[in-house]
Amino acid sequence: MPSIFETEIREQPVALARLLRDGRAGTQEVAERIGVFQPRFVVIVARGSSDNVARYAQYLFGIRHGLTVALATPSVVTRYGASPSVDGALVVGVSQSGRSPDLLAVVEEGRRQGALTLAVTNDPASPLAQAAEACLPLHAGEERAVAATKSYSNQLMVFAMLSTALREDADGWARLAAVPEAVAAAIDHNARPDTSAVVPEDAVRMAVLGRGWNMSTAFELALKVKETSYVMAEPFSSADFLHGPVAMVDRTLPIIAVAPGGRMDEDADALVELARGRHAPLAVISEREELLSTADLALKLPAGVPEWLSPMVAVVPGQLFALALASSRGLEPDAPRGLSKVTRTV
Amino acid sequence: MPSIFETEIREQPVALARLLRDGRAGTQEVAERIGVFQPRFVVIVARGSSDNVARYAQYLFGIRHGLTVALATPSVVTRYGASPSVDGALVVGVSQSGRSPDLLAVVEEGRRQGALTLAVTNDPASPLAQAAEACLPLHAGEERAVAATKSYSNQLMVFAMLSTALREDADGWARLAAVPEAVAAAIDHNARPDTSAVVPEDAVRMAVLGRGWNMSTAFELALKVKETSYVMAEPFSSADFLHGPVAMVDRTLPIIAVAPGGRMDEDADALVELARGRHAPLAVISEREELLSTADLALKLPAGVPEWLSPMVAVVPGQLFALALASSRGLEPDAPRGLSKVTRTV
Repeated sequence: MPSIFETEIREQPVALARLLRDGRAGTQEVAERIGVFQPRFVVIVARGSSDNVARYAQYLFGIRHGLTVALATPSVVTRYGASPSVDGALVVGVSQSGRSPDLLAVVEEGRRQGALTLAVTNDPASPLAQAAEACLPLHAGEERAVAATKSYSNQLMVFAMLSTALREDADGWARLAAVPEAVAAAIDHNARPDTSAVVPEDAVRMAVLGRGWNMSTAFELALKVKETSYVMAEPFSSADFLHGPVAMVDRTLPIIAVAPGGRMDEDADALVELARGRHAPLAVISEREELLSTADLALKLPAGVPEWLSPMVAVVPGQLFALALASSRGLEPDAPRGLSKVTRTV
Repeated sequence: MPSIFETEIREQPVALARLLRDGRAGTQEVAERIGVFQPRFVVIVARGSSDNVARYAQYLFGIRHGLTVALATPSVVTRYGASPSVDGALVVGVSQSGRSPDLLAVVEEGRRQGALTLAVTNDPASPLAQAAEACLPLHAGEERAVAATKSYSNQLMVFAMLSTALREDADGWARLAAVPEAVAAAIDHNARPDTSAVVPEDAVRMAVLGRGWNMSTAFELALKVKETSYVMAEPFSSADFLHGPVAMVDRTLPIIAVAPGGRMDEDADALVELARGRHAPLAVISEREELLSTADLALKLPAGVPEWLSPMVAVVPGQLFALALASSRGLEPDAPRGLSKVTRTV
């Protein structure tokens, strides 16, 4: 019997399609409120997988809407009792469960200051949803695996839909409608990756690199691997990687490059050349054949997905990689050690 | 003969004292400009060690000045050609060399938009310093080791001085004046840490945890270890750690807890209990005896340093830990593989 983790990975095309169908009207309403409010900047508060969605949203609001995005540091509010000004800001809390007290505190403080507050959560009855003025539900259905998958991709889609509504971009909606099928294709292409081609049986670490839109994907892939295989997969922006961590690269450091194709091709090519030059085992997630052909493990993406939507598709081979790695080590991905579905930090 | 890396670690008390003496007047002037400008929020752009200083500044501006801080994602400007609004913001570029083109691009774009721009750099003649309206030099003296140490602690001090000047805090200046001596004490207490007490000879990974003011310290310590020992030391906020990565903890994962003492004591205690419960080898950086006594390796800090200044002191045992670990593996800390002193990313 497949694990719940695997079942939920495979549910993603359906969950995304449901969100596109059931979430559009609500998204339009929230976009109108944001249009009236005209935020000066954006603050996003999140933890875990949701924080990786926040990284995506940083690029989304920056590139498509000209807005600076700050990722909140909740302890400033909860541990130090300070109230950083969010005057004129859009404050967004992102959380599958909507139940972590530190996220709630930041959204409540934002509302108290008169910011426009928004909850992105799978539970519209959660404390986070109640605390915010507006809520965009994920329509992901109940998520049972501790390691988030369908809630992650639906969170990405919520932001992509919000952006499309904000830009009144009819073309954008057509592109969004094609995403579930691309996600299904990514699942089909990468059903059982041979992780041993890059990660030896005794390896306990790897590096995961991406930049721009897909820095989010690198971070999420690394988190999935950690949660399900206990391998320390550390994520990096490929630019940050060059400012120090690159010193680690040798034949003992497996590398996964997330490089769907787009404005980061030059960065990806340089990275792959570096990894090859130092004999690091290399997996590549890409739609580009010439890049895939250089890899020890090619994780192929369907062609034609615009770069700004690629994180929803590119994460899929990463989830399947994590699943395969956990299985190869005889681990049960549904029950990570010491984790529960709802994490409450203060 | 000691390495340049070690020599520069030991130079820190002198470099900090020089900055306090020679940098104060310039800091007052910049504080006055900021006071007149009244920024709505702050954007900081940096890479590598300087980015860890930016993490410190996030807490500094948030807790002591009520300002939201965004850490810039330079590729939004350089790779995607977008111009996120920084209207009314203070935009700060932090870089030892002042020479990375991506940082320059963000500061230039900020100035074009009418933000108040500030460079924090060791080279007041660098392109970054020229691009910004105001510059706060580090007065660190030439830094020759590739892995930054004295430029890191002087960057922290520049921000601590700026905060003190902004608050017109006479008491603050007295507290700053005591830092060089505390740094010297931290060097004396931790001259040759026995890294084998936590990191076995064949270990290739470890986790470094801190939160709040000292999340910066955890990130910087991890970077020093990576650069000089090639051990994958991954840093985490101890709150983020609970949202997934905690699943990795077992007797094969060495942990360093950065917990000087202060508002994060509760988080630190919970973390230490967790590590002990799962038999993870544990090093603790703290001034608290009861916490140090639980550790396999106690890295003791001098008592009485206020929490907001503790990152300048707490990083020192981390630097010495990295040095000792590199030495124990026969590595030359002055010449990390594939790194040069000036990294230029676009």
